[in-house]
Amino acid sequence: MIKYPSGIIVPPKKTKPMTRATTAANRGMGLEHDINLSNRHYNELGRALITKRPTPINVVKVDYSKGARITDAYFEKQSTTDYNGIYRGKYLDFEAKSTLSKSSFPLSNVSSHQFAHLENVLVQGGLAFFIVQFVNLGQTYLLPARDVIEYRKSAARQSLPLAFFKERGCLIEEGYAPRLDYLKAVEKLFFSR
Amino acid sequence: MIKYPSGIIVPPKKTKPMTRATTAANRGMGLEHDINLSNRHYNELGRALITKRPTPINVVKVDYSKGARITDAYFEKQSTTDYNGIYRGKYLDFEAKSTLSKSSFPLSNVSSHQFAHLENVLVQGGLAFFIVQFVNLGQTYLLPARDVIEYRKSAARQSLPLAFFKERGCLIEEGYAPRLDYLKAVEKLFFSR
Repeated sequence: MIKYPSGIIVPPKKTKPMTRATTAANRGMGLEHDINLSNRHYNELGRALITKRPTPINVVKVDYSKGARITDAYFEKQSTTDYNGIYRGKYLDFEAKSTLSKSSFPLSNVSSHQFAHLENVLVQGGLAFFIVQFVNLGQTYLLPARDVIEYRKSAARQSLPLAFFKERGCLIEEGYAPRLDYLKAVEKLFFSR
Repeated sequence: MIKYPSGIIVPPKKTKPMTRATTAANRGMGLEHDINLSNRHYNELGRALITKRPTPINVVKVDYSKGARITDAYFEKQSTTDYNGIYRGKYLDFEAKSTLSKSSFPLSNVSSHQFAHLENVLVQGGLAFFIVQFVNLGQTYLLPARDVIEYRKSAARQSLPLAFFKERGCLIEEGYAPRLDYLKAVEKLFFSR
């Protein structure tokens, strides 16, 4: 129970447990929302400027009689990543994904275009990483893209075990603001070595 | 006339002269296309990694029976800029605009959100600039955002005269590949001072 200053007692919100029926699209929305809020927080503090790339949409038909209303369009596959920006003067670029699995993250969730993009970021001297949320564990990890790229090239298994995240990545602390303090994890993995 | 190896003679394409009736939306497409091609070229050479942010679209209705076809949506105002990326290890961010005017660029073409975004880029130590094409002069300039922001705050006139571009900016060389060698202008304005 949360006791508000006014004395009104608000019962804790009953959240519907996530089921297997949750679609892949919806599943990621919680993570995306939390990252967007965290980015806004970082931006307000002047700590970083990180923005989400809009979802690419191919517009087929526009009705100008209705003030440029789009009447036919479809989602395109993102060929880059979801987020990029600047932190401590460095360019950073990352992809955010969530999974229902409790034990591993299937690499098939990431397109080869996205891997190529992250490799290019590394070539240019930027920071590249993944943020992966294990929804059913309630844990979110930051993992350097370099490690994932290496693993993908060498391992027979096309799925990253949870142990890999614990070993090479960093658990992201959750809180009120920022929701996901992923820059703390960036700090640990990229700036303190 | 272009004489192709096969011996077929192809007459030069007659391009329709641009008229006042060209809409603001179409007008920018040539510039956008040229920048995208230049970015692809830079990326292929490993010189830089600069991408266009997709146009943000607010999706209202999706028809899942047709394989996630969007049947109702509208364009949202871009709150950031068109392009960002990494060059020589530095984060860069810019907005590209074209104008039919032969003498000045009206600042009303840029939203206050975009100015705020570019100011944030400067605070974070990134490179921020504008690429402005004077369609009817056949000239494209790169101009540091810092100069534009200063001008906007001080000047009574909310329009940048062409002379300002010549004085503070740099004319971008046009060619085959890259179409617009704007990194040469970045080099001059940001790296050789």
